[in-house]
Amino acid sequence: MSAGRSERAETPMKTVRVALGERSYPIRIGAGTLDDAGAAIAKATGARQVAVLTVPGVGRRYAPRLLRSLKAAGVRARRIEVPDGDATKNLRQAAKLYDAFLEQGLDRRSALVALGGGMVGDLTGYAAATYLRGIPFVQVPTTLLSMVDASVGGKVAVNLKQGKNLVGAFHQPRLVWIDSETLRSLPARERAAGMAELIKHAAIRDARLFAQLERDVEAALALDPAVLNAAIARSCRIKAEVVAQDEREGGVRMLLNFGHTLGHAVEKKYRYGRVLHGEAVSMGMVYAARRSEELALAPAGTAARLEALLQRAGLPTELPQFARKAYLDALRVDKKKQDERIRFVVLRRIGEAETRPLTPEEIYPLRP
Amino acid sequence: MSAGRSERAETPMKTVRVALGERSYPIRIGAGTLDDAGAAIAKATGARQVAVLTVPGVGRRYAPRLLRSLKAAGVRARRIEVPDGDATKNLRQAAKLYDAFLEQGLDRRSALVALGGGMVGDLTGYAAATYLRGIPFVQVPTTLLSMVDASVGGKVAVNLKQGKNLVGAFHQPRLVWIDSETLRSLPARERAAGMAELIKHAAIRDARLFAQLERDVEAALALDPAVLNAAIARSCRIKAEVVAQDEREGGVRMLLNFGHTLGHAVEKKYRYGRVLHGEAVSMGMVYAARRSEELALAPAGTAARLEALLQRAGLPTELPQFARKAYLDALRVDKKKQDERIRFVVLRRIGEAETRPLTPEEIYPLRP
Repeated sequence: MSAGRSERAETPMKTVRVALGERSYPIRIGAGTLDDAGAAIAKATGARQVAVLTVPGVGRRYAPRLLRSLKAAGVRARRIEVPDGDATKNLRQAAKLYDAFLEQGLDRRSALVALGGGMVGDLTGYAAATYLRGIPFVQVPTTLLSMVDASVGGKVAVNLKQGKNLVGAFHQPRLVWIDSETLRSLPARERAAGMAELIKHAAIRDARLFAQLERDVEAALALDPAVLNAAIARSCRIKAEVVAQDEREGGVRMLLNFGHTLGHAVEKKYRYGRVLHGEAVSMGMVYAARRSEELALAPAGTAARLEALLQRAGLPTELPQFARKAYLDALRVDKKKQDERIRFVVLRRIGEAETRPLTPEEIYPLRP
Repeated sequence: MSAGRSERAETPMKTVRVALGERSYPIRIGAGTLDDAGAAIAKATGARQVAVLTVPGVGRRYAPRLLRSLKAAGVRARRIEVPDGDATKNLRQAAKLYDAFLEQGLDRRSALVALGGGMVGDLTGYAAATYLRGIPFVQVPTTLLSMVDASVGGKVAVNLKQGKNLVGAFHQPRLVWIDSETLRSLPARERAAGMAELIKHAAIRDARLFAQLERDVEAALALDPAVLNAAIARSCRIKAEVVAQDEREGGVRMLLNFGHTLGHAVEKKYRYGRVLHGEAVSMGMVYAARRSEELALAPAGTAARLEALLQRAGLPTELPQFARKAYLDALRVDKKKQDERIRFVVLRRIGEAETRPLTPEEIYPLRP
């Protein structure tokens, strides 16, 4: 913690504002700032009573500090632990949470805090969107993926047995509080998976961030706070810009699906085991970049540059050798398909993407 | 139906626009217009596939006509029946609906239609708010209460065992289609209960509508389309104005709670049996009007005038003789209480209301 304090002095907090009219909110990024979260949460929500939702591992490490800082800010706080893993993100768990909130006496002026990764953020956000017709919530993400991805956009959801994120809402947090020091306890493989989404944001919108990552992706993964926090802030800003333009996902927000069409196919085929989401997206991005070159949309070398960076981040870049039919079947049930065509995200160059309406066969052509 | 056609010619459709920025929508009020709903729903939602949610009695009477009109408009429609009664409005029923939607293949461009009373509207709206993070829905209310009350405001919810409407959202319909002829099949007692909310809107905001109802409340209850449709339209307009000023219920929307503080206490004490919501509100309004006079906020005679109109509508106007403690206990857990005080809605005169922060003891004082 003393290390955190001193680094904090060196790397001042950064703020990214997500501009959504009266639903606007700030993302505050620092290193070693968890102990200051309480006051910020109190100010952002006005709540005097909150529930902090977390999973056992993260909760053991960070919940005591967060609860202490909430109490110091005059907020009554209770920790609610949910089992780890995406299977927890369901309607039954949400129903249990409502019971816990009522027992705790949370009312419309109370708030929820999500302390953890994307699962905790999604579940907490969904509960916050629906409890008493919506109460405020704050995200305190502790994985790189949730820092750069799930913390921006307001998409909250739970899974049904038929598929992921089929029930949900758009519910914006009042504040996202990122302490990148919490990544110290994140396994290297998950850091890399989070880096995939960060690289994705650079690839579709920001050639300068991409070049920066080409300079020092290793330092970012080693949690050098100056490098990492700048990259997180830039990545959040990209997603925030896209979301602000397109809160409910009709147009430009589609670009965030870069790498996801094939990535989802891989995840589904593996039944969401074996590969992490970011790993599947990494494979999907390289595939999509190569396809962009083949369709003469991106200059030669684009895919190789993307692949090299992803590999340096420790990410897999080749799709598994499933039968072509398996990929086509997965593409055909893609929920983003429009009639027969899928709005497939292609690169025009590093830093620029667009969608193309392609059939599954055009996305995954027969190769001689 | 031929009667409906000819009356329709006499009473042209009325439109009330609920102004909520990009969430604005029209309420269309007519007599004998159910057969035209399909085209309007297709236009308002853009959907080519819908599910029509209803309860058995209403479904038997009106669903075939509605489905026929949807088909004529090129919309594939399926009827989904849920059991009648407020107990149906729960998370388990919502989960069953999600399964039915997936089985039917409803996607983000599909829509839901609520055909029935407030329960169906609330449940359908909640399912629409959460399925695939929100899809469009349309209300086709068939009770007077849901026409003048539930159809405006966007409050959708389900009950928990701990209380009513504890889980929900704000989700505005794309269209409300009111055919007042569907009220022919509504029992007289429920017509009267709906009239209570209509009289409430007049009492808090519109002295002219109140005077109109004093002239011909009997004709309205007998479903004279010219009288009734004008009153429904005026009542919807009042609620729409209030909601437009205050979509999420901080200020002026509180006025819609006139009569509800004591009304809820009565409903709760009866465990939501024996009295209809509108009947409880009728008792609560007369109580609140008398209290307004006692507190020298409203001129003498205000309560008597309100009471006389409610009685002509066939509504009860005296609170049950529960022990004072029972009322105080019910008031103390009122979820709208702010610290110790409740924002109690009082009348200043017929057509004008305001809130006063009062303690339970001030709302229900000890009487010698």
